[in-house]
Amino acid sequence: MNNNVEVFIGCESNYEDSNVVLFGAPFDGTTSYRPGTRFGSKAIRSESFGIETYSPYQDKDLEDYKIFDYGDLELCFGNTERVLKDIEEQADTIFNDEKIPGMMGGEHLVTLGAVRAAVKKYPDLNIIHFDAHTDLREEYLGETLSHATVMRRIHDIVGDNKIHQFGIRSGERKEFYWAKEHTNLNKFNFNGLEEAVKLLQGKPVYFTIDLDVLDPSEFCGTGTPEAGGVSFTELLNAIIEVGKLNIVGFDMVELSPIYDQSGASTAIACKILRELLLSIQ
Amino acid sequence: MNNNVEVFIGCESNYEDSNVVLFGAPFDGTTSYRPGTRFGSKAIRSESFGIETYSPYQDKDLEDYKIFDYGDLELCFGNTERVLKDIEEQADTIFNDEKIPGMMGGEHLVTLGAVRAAVKKYPDLNIIHFDAHTDLREEYLGETLSHATVMRRIHDIVGDNKIHQFGIRSGERKEFYWAKEHTNLNKFNFNGLEEAVKLLQGKPVYFTIDLDVLDPSEFCGTGTPEAGGVSFTELLNAIIEVGKLNIVGFDMVELSPIYDQSGASTAIACKILRELLLSIQ
Amino acid sequence: MNNNVEVFIGCESNYEDSNVVLFGAPFDGTTSYRPGTRFGSKAIRSESFGIETYSPYQDKDLEDYKIFDYGDLELCFGNTERVLKDIEEQADTIFNDEKIPGMMGGEHLVTLGAVRAAVKKYPDLNIIHFDAHTDLREEYLGETLSHATVMRRIHDIVGDNKIHQFGIRSGERKEFYWAKEHTNLNKFNFNGLEEAVKLLQGKPVYFTIDLDVLDPSEFCGTGTPEAGGVSFTELLNAIIEVGKLNIVGFDMVELSPIYDQSGASTAIACKILRELLLSIQ
Amino acid sequence: MNNNVEVFIGCESNYEDSNVVLFGAPFDGTTSYRPGTRFGSKAIRSESFGIETYSPYQDKDLEDYKIFDYGDLELCFGNTERVLKDIEEQADTIFNDEKIPGMMGGEHLVTLGAVRAAVKKYPDLNIIHFDAHTDLREEYLGETLSHATVMRRIHDIVGDNKIHQFGIRSGERKEFYWAKEHTNLNKFNFNGLEEAVKLLQGKPVYFTIDLDVLDPSEFCGTGTPEAGGVSFTELLNAIIEVGKLNIVGFDMVELSPIYDQSGASTAIACKILRELLLSIQ
Amino acid sequence: MNNNVEVFIGCESNYEDSNVVLFGAPFDGTTSYRPGTRFGSKAIRSESFGIETYSPYQDKDLEDYKIFDYGDLELCFGNTERVLKDIEEQADTIFNDEKIPGMMGGEHLVTLGAVRAAVKKYPDLNIIHFDAHTDLREEYLGETLSHATVMRRIHDIVGDNKIHQFGIRSGERKEFYWAKEHTNLNKFNFNGLEEAVKLLQGKPVYFTIDLDVLDPSEFCGTGTPEAGGVSFTELLNAIIEVGKLNIVGFDMVELSPIYDQSGASTAIACKILRELLLSIQ
Amino acid sequence: MNNNVEVFIGCESNYEDSNVVLFGAPFDGTTSYRPGTRFGSKAIRSESFGIETYSPYQDKDLEDYKIFDYGDLELCFGNTERVLKDIEEQADTIFNDEKIPGMMGGEHLVTLGAVRAAVKKYPDLNIIHFDAHTDLREEYLGETLSHATVMRRIHDIVGDNKIHQFGIRSGERKEFYWAKEHTNLNKFNFNGLEEAVKLLQGKPVYFTIDLDVLDPSEFCGTGTPEAGGVSFTELLNAIIEVGKLNIVGFDMVELSPIYDQSGASTAIACKILRELLLSIQ
Repeated sequence: MNNNVEVFIGCESNYEDSNVVLFGAPFDGTTSYRPGTRFGSKAIRSESFGIETYSPYQDKDLEDYKIFDYGDLELCFGNTERVLKDIEEQADTIFNDEKIPGMMGGEHLVTLGAVRAAVKKYPDLNIIHFDAHTDLREEYLGETLSHATVMRRIHDIVGDNKIHQFGIRSGERKEFYWAKEHTNLNKFNFNGLEEAVKLLQGKPVYFTIDLDVLDPSEFCGTGTPEAGGVSFTELLNAIIEVGKLNIVGFDMVELSPIYDQSGASTAIACKILRELLLSIQ
Repeated sequence: MNNNVEVFIGCESNYEDSNVVLFGAPFDGTTSYRPGTRFGSKAIRSESFGIETYSPYQDKDLEDYKIFDYGDLELCFGNTERVLKDIEEQADTIFNDEKIPGMMGGEHLVTLGAVRAAVKKYPDLNIIHFDAHTDLREEYLGETLSHATVMRRIHDIVGDNKIHQFGIRSGERKEFYWAKEHTNLNKFNFNGLEEAVKLLQGKPVYFTIDLDVLDPSEFCGTGTPEAGGVSFTELLNAIIEVGKLNIVGFDMVELSPIYDQSGASTAIACKILRELLLSIQ
Repeated sequence: MNNNVEVFIGCESNYEDSNVVLFGAPFDGTTSYRPGTRFGSKAIRSESFGIETYSPYQDKDLEDYKIFDYGDLELCFGNTERVLKDIEEQADTIFNDEKIPGMMGGEHLVTLGAVRAAVKKYPDLNIIHFDAHTDLREEYLGETLSHATVMRRIHDIVGDNKIHQFGIRSGERKEFYWAKEHTNLNKFNFNGLEEAVKLLQGKPVYFTIDLDVLDPSEFCGTGTPEAGGVSFTELLNAIIEVGKLNIVGFDMVELSPIYDQSGASTAIACKILRELLLSIQ
Repeated sequence: MNNNVEVFIGCESNYEDSNVVLFGAPFDGTTSYRPGTRFGSKAIRSESFGIETYSPYQDKDLEDYKIFDYGDLELCFGNTERVLKDIEEQADTIFNDEKIPGMMGGEHLVTLGAVRAAVKKYPDLNIIHFDAHTDLREEYLGETLSHATVMRRIHDIVGDNKIHQFGIRSGERKEFYWAKEHTNLNKFNFNGLEEAVKLLQGKPVYFTIDLDVLDPSEFCGTGTPEAGGVSFTELLNAIIEVGKLNIVGFDMVELSPIYDQSGASTAIACKILRELLLSIQ
Repeated sequence: MNNNVEVFIGCESNYEDSNVVLFGAPFDGTTSYRPGTRFGSKAIRSESFGIETYSPYQDKDLEDYKIFDYGDLELCFGNTERVLKDIEEQADTIFNDEKIPGMMGGEHLVTLGAVRAAVKKYPDLNIIHFDAHTDLREEYLGETLSHATVMRRIHDIVGDNKIHQFGIRSGERKEFYWAKEHTNLNKFNFNGLEEAVKLLQGKPVYFTIDLDVLDPSEFCGTGTPEAGGVSFTELLNAIIEVGKLNIVGFDMVELSPIYDQSGASTAIACKILRELLLSIQ
Repeated sequence: MNNNVEVFIGCESNYEDSNVVLFGAPFDGTTSYRPGTRFGSKAIRSESFGIETYSPYQDKDLEDYKIFDYGDLELCFGNTERVLKDIEEQADTIFNDEKIPGMMGGEHLVTLGAVRAAVKKYPDLNIIHFDAHTDLREEYLGETLSHATVMRRIHDIVGDNKIHQFGIRSGERKEFYWAKEHTNLNKFNFNGLEEAVKLLQGKPVYFTIDLDVLDPSEFCGTGTPEAGGVSFTELLNAIIEVGKLNIVGFDMVELSPIYDQSGASTAIACKILRELLLSIQ
């Protein structure tokens, strides 16, 4: 008999054989409003057995691929910089083994750790960013490392015109105005995505999905629900579109199971991860 | 003074006068994931007083018809075959009295009991099946009687090309492939329904609605929420379309009030039942 | 140090400088089914700090306007007429100071108190009414003052053809039939709104939004969720359209936080209030 | 087949044969803080099937007695005096048929309706009152009819030294001081109950239990949980003690299922009602 | 990197080295009232990281012992006899390896599977049974295999005077009367336990704890909460007392996380399991 | 009209006149397990209107004293040291104005900020600490500033034999052993409190109450519920006992409203704060 193993459905392969490596970053230490995304990765793993490995949308099956699920990193609380270092090291290892890291949040700031590693491996990195929020503040409550500043910090690293934002519908006035000169910000929906995908053909792309890009009607299990979001079908099609690119790393963040009484948000997160894993194969 | 009576709104008629007979089948004994549909029929009855008897969609009123609500069958737990027998007997009685049975689930397997009775009365029975799931497994966790096998068991009885499935968006790969040769499976939505209705004009039809055909945004109170479902308006129109057929029996299953914290799922189930009752009159 | 102040985000101006005056009417004493809207105004105020003051839809910012938030009226329970008087007095004061009252419910009956005051100031008052329900009963459970009769009572005051109703999808048959001769009732959506706005140019308009006009998928936190409602985007556009009129008073009612486990309903209510405040400036 | 009947477990007898008559008073219209007791009687009836008819405490079984359950009165909201009249009439009928009314609340004010009827039948009526609160205010938010004034209104009818209060641990200072001269108020627990029972031997007694007399650890499903309450075992023993008296009517009020996520509060209410019904037989 | 492992805290040893073997039996298929105990074992494992491995009560630490956690059995739903066989086989294997099986439920019927195995190994088996319910029905809703009959079925195997029951406070009259001649039933608390422990010195004992023996105030997360139960401290002392015996197998059943909104029930279950594991070492 | 003010009940006095100054520290940034105490102070303030200002236990009334409620500090997330500085500064101001600071958490680490200020004012400071947990770790997940290390950090400042701990029932083995030489740790209950109060007569005492010292049956609304705690009555008496000392500052921490579905935990926290405020006057 062996000890109990728990992984995302269809991701039972061992590390060596796999080309994609999932891991959880259960951190929400800069979340200023409603916390709980620290429980996101665990919930996704646990509830994934409520969905199938087969996608009728893409006619593909997770059972045909080699994917490894490491489980969650053990992250501290109260020291943000140390958390980002731990994430960066995990991503370094995976990049160095020529695999694709797939991170499950946690809050959106965890993306910064993975992108720091990605940029070392792929200096010409581009970002595709699905989100309800701009995340472009210079600082938040006096702190420069925050879920609300994460894309600004990433901009510090990758520079102008490398960040392609979609679905954005909330932020301060000055964030929207700043974006006009520094990022490719698309409000409300995925208009402009096809064009971006054309532009980025063959280039290394890090793909970050903040699940609150979804409308709260379909995804209420998050800290800051923002009305007016995209539908599952729109997100699904956008993911399949992005899957045509050279995705070198990805993450999916901001599920907060505390606010998902019915389990529908966790279920949709599982399904999006399945479709994402299949779209990049 | 008389003892307290509790029925679905507008269904206070006595058995003899009624042409439609509602009853509950509070069973979820094969539900492998998240149980709770056993409480569905009771919740629907109790919460129905939050809606009106009048439908502004069909401009009809339940008060103009004769419908009887029996309440819930008393079903055992732990012996699936006995449960199905009890349901079949109840449906037998109603069919023999030349009335239309309308069953409130419970899980989807209860449909098998009613269909067994329906086929005895109408050997040429056709099935219209709204669902998120194929329900076409040969067995599930080693059992042949399961919510996940119910349409396959019904196929055992009615044979090829009698089952018309709509809204299907989840299942194993082999279920979808099997369906290509044995059922009329329509993925994701109600495309193809109009054609099916033409085909089935005048024939006896059993109509089974698994409420998880609805998108979880509108109906999260169910054991296995599947993103990408149909809307209330789409379902409503489909029900009115099906109402043109010779419906000899029907059911509405898989409401699990446990996962309906707000009550919105139970409320929509009540409204769908109202529209269904009106559409077949 | 000063005592703790709590207001709706961006509404910190003092009374004298403000042209709009918010106040809460935490009353649900005639709610027959599921109570809880008494907590609505408080929740909106408290959770408003989860949204931004800037609207990317209208490209306007609350920080550019002068709005005052009084907090909640202290209303009794059990004496409906007295509650209406207290609301009327508050509105009288605001009207007399040549400001626009903006009331947060509470149940829909509170609108009657504000309209009584509005009619004194603007005898030729028109009403724009967004709601799932007709609210046109003559009496309900024997009472003439009820959330289910409020538009009928308002009709008693303003007369025929002054009430313009949108999004209506629930009511008794006789209410719908009565409306044909006495109000401008538009079923299900905002078709007809543009025409009504043309008609009412320059006239004094009281604007009442029952939040259950929204689909329960987007707004489940209410006593009587009615499937088949409008979307946030549709409501937003309708509000911007109505904002072109001469709005002399407004309210937003029927948020019941008890049924909003995820907080998404309260969040959308905050956003709608923000857009409403910006649309009338 | 007969329409679905729903009664409290073991209370299926018909009206004529029964010596005790249960009915629900689903009213919480004066509840100023957290409403929801309107759902109490229905929840008790529905969940009673989770307990047994047999009491191992009293070694008695409900099946050995004749008890009738009428169901809930249909009460209006918004007109407190009319509600009290409807309750009084129901109690009048039961008293006139020489039976014992047993009312399930609802909020505590409903007791006033039943006591008005009781005093007509038994002019020398005494009251035994279990509660966390004094309920002795002269008025509350300007209203004299309120859950917070109910024992004061009953004092208006029965006069000094007729009300025996136990378990009281919350109220205004002046209520506690007023009680010293007008009622027999026992703080915190049931000390003094034995003495009161001796005093009241043979006299007609109305027995009212506000379930919030229980500690919130055992009974959190109520509008105003007050720490420091009595335990189930203490309440059980007190009920058995009171059962030695000539109980001419009784009620059990203030269960609010909204705040009872686990169902434990509703379950304890069911058990207390069972023990109460058995103790007076 | 290795796949994610999830075990009860402090139970990371491998199978060969361990003298105690934990496993989950996630089955609630005969639960007639409120299901959900199928999620019990998983929740206990997952939430155990909220407690410490050290017991200040016994001054012992799980880190000093060798315990293995297998995870959950994969059990079917809808075929009760097959479930019991699967459990029996798992227990057989553990007994044959001269280890102590420790099962986490699931509903109480799972105990029957383990006891069937235990009796094969230890024909003179005695049972210590902590529970709120007698569980001594001959059949329930027509079925002989049920959570409500489990101790009667065990009596079929072990015979008279081998079952020692404590904390019992709910059941049918005839169950209590039957127990007088066939089991050692102790009502309400642990009076009589010391005597039983003396009697059973040196004999093989199977120890089954139905967590609903606890008062619902401390443990509301269960299907059938029964007021008047024992406290954590009383249960802890009783477990330490029983730990003096020759425990050959044990289980802890009936946690239903669905009804444990706060997590306090799951936390207490974790702590009881820790104390139980330490008491038998 | 003035902007809406929200304070703890009975604490409406202005700063200058008051001898006690309440403020909230809404921080839970080092909480490793279940967050949410950041909402504690706001919930206490908001729900305090459900209790009375009068204590029947102490026969005192908040209306007779001068207490000021500042509201919540605006604290950042992600930078623990900055948070502690902000708290320390607030406490400094209050101490310098010769008033008593009363802090509402937030997690337990916030106490460190207040104690840093207190020690500057009262170098011979003693601590009375009510808690379920030792909080004596040297570091937690690599961090020295944590809710799990707070009393160790305070020991760094105040030294041996100055910390008096009561109700402790959870921690690592080495924490309990370390305490034997450095603090006055009393396990499980308040035995030893009377002696400590004698010892500390006249000395400056900072009083910190972690509400999880209460049994989870009475207080489940906290991140880490620990069975076997003290009762409200025991805590109340202990608070009155401590009130005899020279309390120079105090706090009450670890209410997490997220896990308090019924509101009973928030209600008991309000009552404890009332009793605490009255006991030190």
